[in-house]
Amino acid sequence: MREIGIGIIGTGFMGTAHALALATAARLFDLPARPRFEMVVDPDPARAETLARRFGFARHHTDWRALVEDPAVDLVSVTTPNHLHAPMSLAAIAAGKAVWCEKPLAPTTREAVAMARAAEEARVATAVGFNYLKNPLVRFARELLAAGEIGEIWSFRGIHAEDYMADPELPWSWRLDPVAGGGVVADLGSHIVALARFLVGEIAEVNGDLSTVVGERPKAPGAAERVPVEVDDVARALLRFSSGAGGSIEASWVAAGRKMHLAFEVTGSRGALRLDMERLNELHLFVRGGPAGREGFVEIPAGPDHPDYAAFCPAPGHQIGFNDMKAIEARYVVEAVAGGRPFTPDFGEAAAVQAVIDAIRLSAREGGWRRPAELLYEAGGSP
Amino acid sequence: MREIGIGIIGTGFMGTAHALALATAARLFDLPARPRFEMVVDPDPARAETLARRFGFARHHTDWRALVEDPAVDLVSVTTPNHLHAPMSLAAIAAGKAVWCEKPLAPTTREAVAMARAAEEARVATAVGFNYLKNPLVRFARELLAAGEIGEIWSFRGIHAEDYMADPELPWSWRLDPVAGGGVVADLGSHIVALARFLVGEIAEVNGDLSTVVGERPKAPGAAERVPVEVDDVARALLRFSSGAGGSIEASWVAAGRKMHLAFEVTGSRGALRLDMERLNELHLFVRGGPAGREGFVEIPAGPDHPDYAAFCPAPGHQIGFNDMKAIEARYVVEAVAGGRPFTPDFGEAAAVQAVIDAIRLSAREGGWRRPAELLYEAGGSP
Amino acid sequence: MREIGIGIIGTGFMGTAHALALATAARLFDLPARPRFEMVVDPDPARAETLARRFGFARHHTDWRALVEDPAVDLVSVTTPNHLHAPMSLAAIAAGKAVWCEKPLAPTTREAVAMARAAEEARVATAVGFNYLKNPLVRFARELLAAGEIGEIWSFRGIHAEDYMADPELPWSWRLDPVAGGGVVADLGSHIVALARFLVGEIAEVNGDLSTVVGERPKAPGAAERVPVEVDDVARALLRFSSGAGGSIEASWVAAGRKMHLAFEVTGSRGALRLDMERLNELHLFVRGGPAGREGFVEIPAGPDHPDYAAFCPAPGHQIGFNDMKAIEARYVVEAVAGGRPFTPDFGEAAAVQAVIDAIRLSAREGGWRRPAELLYEAGGSP
Amino acid sequence: MREIGIGIIGTGFMGTAHALALATAARLFDLPARPRFEMVVDPDPARAETLARRFGFARHHTDWRALVEDPAVDLVSVTTPNHLHAPMSLAAIAAGKAVWCEKPLAPTTREAVAMARAAEEARVATAVGFNYLKNPLVRFARELLAAGEIGEIWSFRGIHAEDYMADPELPWSWRLDPVAGGGVVADLGSHIVALARFLVGEIAEVNGDLSTVVGERPKAPGAAERVPVEVDDVARALLRFSSGAGGSIEASWVAAGRKMHLAFEVTGSRGALRLDMERLNELHLFVRGGPAGREGFVEIPAGPDHPDYAAFCPAPGHQIGFNDMKAIEARYVVEAVAGGRPFTPDFGEAAAVQAVIDAIRLSAREGGWRRPAELLYEAGGSP
Repeated sequence: MREIGIGIIGTGFMGTAHALALATAARLFDLPARPRFEMVVDPDPARAETLARRFGFARHHTDWRALVEDPAVDLVSVTTPNHLHAPMSLAAIAAGKAVWCEKPLAPTTREAVAMARAAEEARVATAVGFNYLKNPLVRFARELLAAGEIGEIWSFRGIHAEDYMADPELPWSWRLDPVAGGGVVADLGSHIVALARFLVGEIAEVNGDLSTVVGERPKAPGAAERVPVEVDDVARALLRFSSGAGGSIEASWVAAGRKMHLAFEVTGSRGALRLDMERLNELHLFVRGGPAGREGFVEIPAGPDHPDYAAFCPAPGHQIGFNDMKAIEARYVVEAVAGGRPFTPDFGEAAAVQAVIDAIRLSAREGGWRRPAELLYEAGGSP
Repeated sequence: MREIGIGIIGTGFMGTAHALALATAARLFDLPARPRFEMVVDPDPARAETLARRFGFARHHTDWRALVEDPAVDLVSVTTPNHLHAPMSLAAIAAGKAVWCEKPLAPTTREAVAMARAAEEARVATAVGFNYLKNPLVRFARELLAAGEIGEIWSFRGIHAEDYMADPELPWSWRLDPVAGGGVVADLGSHIVALARFLVGEIAEVNGDLSTVVGERPKAPGAAERVPVEVDDVARALLRFSSGAGGSIEASWVAAGRKMHLAFEVTGSRGALRLDMERLNELHLFVRGGPAGREGFVEIPAGPDHPDYAAFCPAPGHQIGFNDMKAIEARYVVEAVAGGRPFTPDFGEAAAVQAVIDAIRLSAREGGWRRPAELLYEAGGSP
Repeated sequence: MREIGIGIIGTGFMGTAHALALATAARLFDLPARPRFEMVVDPDPARAETLARRFGFARHHTDWRALVEDPAVDLVSVTTPNHLHAPMSLAAIAAGKAVWCEKPLAPTTREAVAMARAAEEARVATAVGFNYLKNPLVRFARELLAAGEIGEIWSFRGIHAEDYMADPELPWSWRLDPVAGGGVVADLGSHIVALARFLVGEIAEVNGDLSTVVGERPKAPGAAERVPVEVDDVARALLRFSSGAGGSIEASWVAAGRKMHLAFEVTGSRGALRLDMERLNELHLFVRGGPAGREGFVEIPAGPDHPDYAAFCPAPGHQIGFNDMKAIEARYVVEAVAGGRPFTPDFGEAAAVQAVIDAIRLSAREGGWRRPAELLYEAGGSP
Repeated sequence: MREIGIGIIGTGFMGTAHALALATAARLFDLPARPRFEMVVDPDPARAETLARRFGFARHHTDWRALVEDPAVDLVSVTTPNHLHAPMSLAAIAAGKAVWCEKPLAPTTREAVAMARAAEEARVATAVGFNYLKNPLVRFARELLAAGEIGEIWSFRGIHAEDYMADPELPWSWRLDPVAGGGVVADLGSHIVALARFLVGEIAEVNGDLSTVVGERPKAPGAAERVPVEVDDVARALLRFSSGAGGSIEASWVAAGRKMHLAFEVTGSRGALRLDMERLNELHLFVRGGPAGREGFVEIPAGPDHPDYAAFCPAPGHQIGFNDMKAIEARYVVEAVAGGRPFTPDFGEAAAVQAVIDAIRLSAREGGWRRPAELLYEAGGSP
C-alpha cells in the first residue's frame, strides 16, 4: 500500500490534533495511502521528542527547515502561529510537498494568495484546518441546502463566540499580535466566514465593525506593566452574498460563558436549519408544510445516515467529538495527497476567506460596504 | 376609590389584549385606581359590540372621534394600524386624555416626536406597548446590569425573528404598506431596539441593511395578480451604544420556523446574560469566578423574587405567559395615569426608538453609519 | 344571557386563581353563561374582603356554610386544605350546587367516592382542578394518541418534581398532615396520575414505594422544637395500564432545583411524544418513517392549531402561562354548569385517581402489586 | 518502555472501539506501558484481516483459543455476544492474562461471580466496558457527590432508552436470545445499574417489572415466518440503596426517537445534579443557597478542570465524543494491567451489577422486593 510521509510543525493542541487525526483516520477509513510518521518539529526539543515518541514519529527536530527539506516527508502540517504559515508553507511547496495548514491561512490576503498561487503552480495538494466544516451534520446541512430542501436561501446568521480572552487580567500573548495573531476577526472570524461560504457561497459585500474592549493587558502573567492591545476582541459584519442572500456574522473571544458557540441559522423560502457546535451532534431542521399543529423544528441526531459518521459508530446517538471531526478532515487530506479529490477548503478557498476578513477590516476602518473580490483581485488572486 | 375611564380603539389581538390586561391588573395588583370600561371602537360595529359585551364596556362606537371626545374616557388605548397612531393619539392628547399606544409609535420620527411633544405640553401620561420589556426576567436582567453584576457592558446581540410573512403566497396586507405597516424594521425591529435601549442605553450610531426577499405577493388571498412589496422583510444593523458598547440586531418576519424568537445576549467584563422569549420564563446568567470546574450559565426560572411575578403566583415555576406581561404593562399604565411614576417607555422613549429605526433605514439607503440623535434633533426632538 | 353565581371558599393562590380564571374565561370565550361573582369566604375577614373587592364579589364571609347555603350561588369553588374538600363539597352538593374542587379531591378513596356518588345522585356538575390537563398541547397530545399517530401505546413515564419542601429547615405545615395534606403522593402524585389516565387510560396495577427523606422538621418557623414527619416526600410507582402498556411515575417535593418538572413521555409502536411543564409551550413528537437522516423529535410550539390556544392569541409563539390553563379549565367548568358537556375530570374521575394513590400507599406498605379498581370497589365506587 | 501485548476477540463496533481506544490512549496519555497490537480474532477471516491491517496487529485468527493461548498476548479484549464472555474470559484468566470484557459480563450472576473469583485467584487485572462511567463529567459528578456538594443523597433516577429495536419488523437477532443477549435489562439496564452504583453506591433492594412489547418478530430479515420473543423490551425497577436513598431506573430499546438517552438525576439535601448522554458534554448542577432570584441549575460545559478531559483539548467546549470516553477507559485498563490502580469496574463490580439485574428479573417474575446481595451470596460471591 502506498504510504505518505508525515511531517508536523508545532506540538501544541493543533500539532497533536493533526497527528491524532491521521492516526485515527488510518484506522477507521479505507484510505488510499497509509500515513507514515516521519518527523515532528518544535523549537523546544523536549516537546518535539514527547510528541514523536507518543505517535511513533521516526525523527524530531527543532528547525522546521529540516522538515520541509526531508525527502521522506510528503505532507507538511503547519500548526504554528499565523505569521509563520506563509514562510513554512511556501518552503514546503517549493520542496514539492503537500501542505495541511491551520487557519487562518495568513495575516493578509496578499500572503494567502501568494501561497495559493505557489501551490497551484507547484501542483501540490493543500488543505486548511477549518475543522468544523467536517462535522457530519454540517456537511449534511450543505447537502440539504444544495438539494433545495429549504428553498431559495434568504438569510445566513452566524456567530463564533468563546471566552478564552474574556478575563481582562489575561496577559498579552501572540494571539494579540497584529501579525502573528490578527485579532478575533482572523482567529474565530475565519471559521464563521468559511462556514458561511461553505453553506451559502460567495460573499459579495461586507460591512463590518471591530471593537477592542480590553484596551490594555498585563505584559506578562502577573506583571504590573500593561501594554496596549492593537487587535479586535469582537468583530461584527453585515453580509451580502453573491446569490442575493443577506446575512450577518459575529466573532468574539471575550464572550463570557461561551466556550464553543460556533452557531449558524440558514433561512430559506421553504424552511430553515441551524446548528450550534456546543451541541454538535444536533441539527435543527424546519420545512414548511407539515400537518396542522405539527410543524416545528426537527432535532436531528447525528447518525450513520450523515457523511462519515458511520466510520465512528454504526448507530446514531453515539456522539461525535472534536477529534472525530479532525479525523474526518485528515481522511480527506490523505485522499487529496494520494491524488483523489482536491481537499476543500484548500489554499485558494482560504485566500478567499482571508479576503473577506480583510474586507471587514477595511470596512471597519473606513465605513461602508467593501467587496472581498476586489481585495482578492488586488492581491493577485482570482475571485 | 378613584376610577379611570377606559376607551379602546381597535378590537383585534391587541385591542383585546389591552382590555384583558386592564381587567387582570385590576384583580391582581393593588392599583391606585380602578379601570372603568367606558367605550370600545371598531369600524365594524359587530366586532365593537362583541368586545364591549365581553369586557363590560358601557358603550361601543364605529368612530374613534366619539371615543376621544367622550368625557368619561380618561385613558385611550390605540391599537390600530401604525399610520393611525398619530392622528388618534394627538386627538386624545388634545382632549386631555392619557394615551396607551401600540408600537411602533408612528411611521416616522417626525410624527413620533410631534406626539411626544404634544403629550409633554398637555402633561398627559403616555405609554407604548413594548410588552416584552415587562417580562419579570427582562426587568430583573436590567437590575443585574445596573448593579454591575456582569461588569462593564461590552456587547449586545439581539434578534426578533418570526415567520408570519414567510410564505411567499401570503397576500399583500396593511403590514406591507410603507406607511401603515412600515416593514419588519418597524414592526419587529422596534421591539428589539426598545429592548436594546432598555438594557444597555442610548444607541449612538447604527449601520444597517434592509432586504425584501419576497419581491411581490398576491394582491389578495388566492389572487393571480401580484403587487410589488415595497418594505423590508429582513433588517440587520450594527450598533454602537453611547456607553461604548457594541452590538448588532436583526429583525425578520420571514424566519421560517421561528415563532417568537425575540432573544438577546448581553456580555460584560465579568459575565453575560441571555433570554429568548420562546422560553420567556428562563434567564441564563453567567458570572466569572466560580469554583474550578463548576462555572457555567445558570438557568434561572422566573419566580417571586423577580419583579411583579408574585402577583401571578407565590411559587416559582408556574410560567408567565404573554397576557401576563401585558397585565404587568397595564399595571404601570394605570399607575402612571393615576399620577404615580411616569410609564416607561413613554412617547418620548418611543420617539427615540423610532429615530433608531429611521437611522437604520437611512443607513441602509445610503450606506455607512448614521446617528439617531441627529434624526431626532432634525425632527424636533431632544436626544 | 344566563348567569352563574360564583362562590369561592379560600383566598390563597388557588382561590385567586379560580376567580381570575373565571373572569378571564368570561372575556375570552363565548361562554353559555356569565359568571356573577357572589361571595368569597375566608376565616380571615381581611383576606376575604380583599379578594371580594378586587374581583367584584358582592359579599364575603368567614363561614363557608354561609356560602353553600346562599341561594345566589350556583357554583362553589373549594380551594381549602384537602381534608376540608369533602365536607364543603358534600354540603354544596346537598344544597344542589355545582362544585369546582381543587385536587386531590379527598384524603381517601372512600371519601372521594362518597363525594362522587353524592354529586351523581344530586345530578350536579363537578370539576376537579387538575389544571395541567388543560394545557393546549396536552390535549393535542391526547388527540394524537387517540388518532394512533404513534401507534399502539407501549410505555408511559411521568414525573412531577418540585422543591418547595426541599429545605430540611422548612417548618411543619398542613401539607405534612396525613389528612389535611397527605404527602407528596397526594399533592403532586395526583397530578401525574391524572395525566397518566388522561393520556393512556385506566391503571390496572401499581407497585409503589414511598420515602420520607426529612424525618423531622421545626414545629414552627425558626422553632428549636422538632416534630416527626409522617408523610412521604418522594413517591415512586411502577404502573400497568389496562391496555397492556407499562409505565412508571415519580412525585417529589424535595427535588432540589426543580420548580415545575411535571413531565411525561409516551412511547408507542410508531413514535413517541413528550412534554415538560417547565416549557409548557413545547410538545416534542417523534414519528418513525421520515426520510433517511432527517428523523428526529419535532419541537412543536403551541399555537392556534391546538385546542383553546386561539382564544389567547391568533398566532403561535405567544406563550401560554399557568393562569391561561386555569382560564381554559374555567371555560369548561362554566360550560358544564350551564348544562353542556360534563367536565373532565369530574369527581368520579378524581375518585379513580384517588384509588390509584391509595393503591400506591397500600403497595408501599405491604409490598407488591395492588389493583386500584379493588380499592375503588371497596370504597363503594364503580371502576 | 514496558509493552502490553493486545489481543482482541471480535471485530464489530466494540472490537474496533477497543482497538481505537488503545491506539488513542497510547498517544494522548502518559501510559506506564505501550500497547503492542498482537492478534485479532473473528470467525470471519476477512473481517479479522481488515481490522488487523488497519490497526497493525501482528496476526489474526478465526479461533479465539489461539489468542488466549498466545504467549505474546497480555491483555485479552472480549467483545463477543454475552454468552461467550465467560468461556473466553475464563480461558484467558487460566492462561494468566488480563481481561477487558464488554458488558454485561455474563448471562447470570453465577457465571459472573465465577469469572470474578477466577480472576481474583489468578491475580489478573480485569475490566468491564461500562464506558459511560468514563465520561469526565460523570466522574466529576461522583467527586461532587463524594465531597457532599449536594448534601446527603436522597434520590437517584436513571434511564437508558434507545430505539434500535423499536421497529416491530426488525428481525430476530442474538440480542433477543435469552442467553446470548438477555433482554434490555441486561443490554442497557446494566449500564444504568452500573451508573447508579458508581454514583450512589450499593443497591440493597429492587422491585422490578419487565415487558415484552413486541411479542414476535420475523425470523430473518424480510421473512414471513415469525418467532416469539422471549426477552424483555422494557425494564423498570424501583431501587432502595444501602445508604437509605431511594430511586428508580428504566431501560428500553424500543423507545422511539431516543438514540442515547442514558440520563440520570441525583437529588440530595442541598442540591441536585443531572446529565444526559445525548448531551454528554453538559452537567447540570444545582446547589441551594444562591442569592435571591439567581438560583438555578448551572449548565457546566466539559473542560480541562474535569478528569481526563485535558488530554483531548486544553480548552473547554471542544466536545468529547463516544470514542474519547472509550480511550479514557483504555487508559485505565492499561494502567491496571501495568500494575497500577485496579480498574473500576472490574469483574467483581460487574458481578454485583449482574446480581442487581438478576434480582430485577426475579422480582419481575415473583413480585415484590428482592435483595441483590442474596443472589450474589447464593452465586458464591461476596457482597
